[in-house]
Amino acid sequence: MQDIEEFIERNREMYIKWLTDFCEIPSVAAQNRGMEEAVGYLDELFEEAFSLKPEKLETSGFPVVFAEMIGKSDKTLSFYNHYDVQPEDPVELWETPAFEPDIRNGKIFARGVADNKGNLIARLAALHAIQQCGEELPVNIKFIFEGEEEIGSLNLPEFAKKYADKIKSDGCVWEFGYRDADGAVQVSLGVKGMLYVELRLKGANTDLHSAQAAIIESPVWKLVWALNTLKDADEKILIPGFYDDIEPVTALEDQLLSQYRLEEEEILKKLELDKFVLDLEGTELKRKHIFEPTCNICGISSGYTGEGTKTVLPSEAMAKLDFRLVPGQDPEKVLRQLRAHLDAQGFKDIAIQVTSSERAARSHPEEAIAGAMIAVAEKYSAKKPNIIPNTPGTGPMYELCQALGIPSASFGVGNFQSNNHAPNENINVEDYIDGIKMIAALVFEFSRQFEPSEGGVR
Amino acid sequence: MQDIEEFIERNREMYIKWLTDFCEIPSVAAQNRGMEEAVGYLDELFEEAFSLKPEKLETSGFPVVFAEMIGKSDKTLSFYNHYDVQPEDPVELWETPAFEPDIRNGKIFARGVADNKGNLIARLAALHAIQQCGEELPVNIKFIFEGEEEIGSLNLPEFAKKYADKIKSDGCVWEFGYRDADGAVQVSLGVKGMLYVELRLKGANTDLHSAQAAIIESPVWKLVWALNTLKDADEKILIPGFYDDIEPVTALEDQLLSQYRLEEEEILKKLELDKFVLDLEGTELKRKHIFEPTCNICGISSGYTGEGTKTVLPSEAMAKLDFRLVPGQDPEKVLRQLRAHLDAQGFKDIAIQVTSSERAARSHPEEAIAGAMIAVAEKYSAKKPNIIPNTPGTGPMYELCQALGIPSASFGVGNFQSNNHAPNENINVEDYIDGIKMIAALVFEFSRQFEPSEGGVR
Repeated sequence: MQDIEEFIERNREMYIKWLTDFCEIPSVAAQNRGMEEAVGYLDELFEEAFSLKPEKLETSGFPVVFAEMIGKSDKTLSFYNHYDVQPEDPVELWETPAFEPDIRNGKIFARGVADNKGNLIARLAALHAIQQCGEELPVNIKFIFEGEEEIGSLNLPEFAKKYADKIKSDGCVWEFGYRDADGAVQVSLGVKGMLYVELRLKGANTDLHSAQAAIIESPVWKLVWALNTLKDADEKILIPGFYDDIEPVTALEDQLLSQYRLEEEEILKKLELDKFVLDLEGTELKRKHIFEPTCNICGISSGYTGEGTKTVLPSEAMAKLDFRLVPGQDPEKVLRQLRAHLDAQGFKDIAIQVTSSERAARSHPEEAIAGAMIAVAEKYSAKKPNIIPNTPGTGPMYELCQALGIPSASFGVGNFQSNNHAPNENINVEDYIDGIKMIAALVFEFSRQFEPSEGGVR
Repeated sequence: MQDIEEFIERNREMYIKWLTDFCEIPSVAAQNRGMEEAVGYLDELFEEAFSLKPEKLETSGFPVVFAEMIGKSDKTLSFYNHYDVQPEDPVELWETPAFEPDIRNGKIFARGVADNKGNLIARLAALHAIQQCGEELPVNIKFIFEGEEEIGSLNLPEFAKKYADKIKSDGCVWEFGYRDADGAVQVSLGVKGMLYVELRLKGANTDLHSAQAAIIESPVWKLVWALNTLKDADEKILIPGFYDDIEPVTALEDQLLSQYRLEEEEILKKLELDKFVLDLEGTELKRKHIFEPTCNICGISSGYTGEGTKTVLPSEAMAKLDFRLVPGQDPEKVLRQLRAHLDAQGFKDIAIQVTSSERAARSHPEEAIAGAMIAVAEKYSAKKPNIIPNTPGTGPMYELCQALGIPSASFGVGNFQSNNHAPNENINVEDYIDGIKMIAALVFEFSRQFEPSEGGVR
């Protein structure tokens, strides 16, 4: 590994440029911006780095960029990443423009640099470094780069079914990963699921003078009352049946949770808050964060929200909600429960539009991919790695991995203040360079996990 | 009156042009647009119509345009109007641009044409016609045109105190007025009051990835829960003490209410609704509309509300509310009650900003101004005029009239589908021309109310 590490160090400027060039492309799937350009960029990079032409696997939405490299064993390691990014608003809160990558104070700032372009490019860079150092690949490699992760990977289930053989592997490196404030590398063995819905309702056919509010029904009041029936101030989700199918947490998962370090003080300080929700701390806080589902309002809008006074009875109201689900919960069933609940509460006139629907996933900590990742993380982490049964975030891990019998785990180049999905998204330059080294090391460690002398699993 | 009516008919195109020229000026006080231009326009119109230079009475905000004309009695009739208008958004719902007046199908479309420029210009036109026909004014006339009505007349109380002598009159014609679907002229004897507040609260110092929603407090959820404590689904306002000071409705007011015609079917048809709030109809509906206060959400905003999916935990949330108050309620006391209620419910961190605060007002139906207006309305209304103890709308009537002992009443050029404060605001051309004639007739009828032979009151 030493020659590979040195090669990476010598070529750090080139690898940083690969990333910043990629981050200049505003590949916002939600707004259909820059998506072809991003695919074109990957095409060129594969050509330049590996003299390889990746496949563009068509879906009903944006294509999946796919590439394969042959190694000397029959084992296969796959990488799942995405080339789409979140929208950049609120634009005014960015210190430098979201799509003009800026390096300052040892950090690279750009939309998507942490989620997920930094990881995607780090993985290509690692394989590039291995090949340039003349090392033979110990396992086969597959890259699966989708373009719809930030809009809920709507077409990935269809893709995974159609290309089940093509994407088969013995372990999948998932897309994300972070370092804690103390420098410890997080290793995540799963993700939460999601149901994302837009609730809409209409009243009169036009906005009215608010003098009419005494006698004309208000859609925004109705929306407020409806939302209030979904979750109470104790954070309990009130939809009947919502918690019924949740899989019990296993003893091993509970043990992982107890070792998992949530940096409470750092988080509160960074966010300028004085407490977590419900004043929770310690194990109870971790349990809520990792093992419990959420019901979050991503956005709400109705009427006049500009400067000054406008006395209007709005004719429409809208809210966007995301439910983060945990293993056992079926997003389609939750949707039916939500509809039935709103109907029962007298809100039949609220229309529900689903924009994202994904199951949660968790891999067993004794799988090869998990073992390899933990071993590498131990080497590159000043502190003991921080292992999480699942992250509180979401991705299409279930459809792409667990549904096909592929174990998965994740680490990466982000950190606890990377501002994913928020203004001033960033990663540390050194974490990026380290991230490249870690992926290179993982390729060899993953292979070692299958060697008979080591027993295959840890 | 016949010569004056004929003069108005012969000059209708000129009077329409006075109005449409005025409506081209986007005098949106809330956004400080076109305000000087509107004052300049009135200056020129007074010069052109009356060879009179109006005074610009300075306030801490936009100036009040004031003018006086001397008549042959010691009685004075005053006109209160405003030259500011509501913002024009949602812009995309206008069939023709808000500030490019368009005449089609017998209607004039423009922001402010009904509220309140149509009435303001009709009153100037009426006095112009009287003078041009060589008639001596039977009473003194005062015009009081303010520029902050749509932002809550914040500086009018100070103005009314400072210029109490200057604006004194024996009756004030208030700014607005409408015709019902059946053509009956509405005569209004009062207005509701108002408390307009903006509620704001903040959470973390930045928007977060919604994966954090399990452990970080959500300001928008808190806002929803707080709003839910203000009004229930039975439309009952839940702030302790809110209803306590309301003056009981008198027998005469109740009698006026019973004669007042609310055109239920037309309203529902126009708004494409199948029922009023709480399924009310008849007297109960009218009582709610005229005699009861409201708590309305004018606007609410938080997080991502654009196209597609964005999974964000918003860091801020905001709502704009207007309470329409009835006689007896003190907006300052209601504000204190609201603050105490939010505090008691655990919402101390919600900041309240007041942007408008006005008391309700009602005049006695036997005052000269009311009698004169009812008599004129009877002449110009195909049906019996529709007399309302107070309109459900708001204006600074209390400060400018009742607090100074001046009775007031109101009719005007609008109609039941004028879309005040909403897209495609409009008036009927014929109502505008009739409105000019009605004001001319009112000047003489008001004078007659004080003649001994008629006993002064009806």
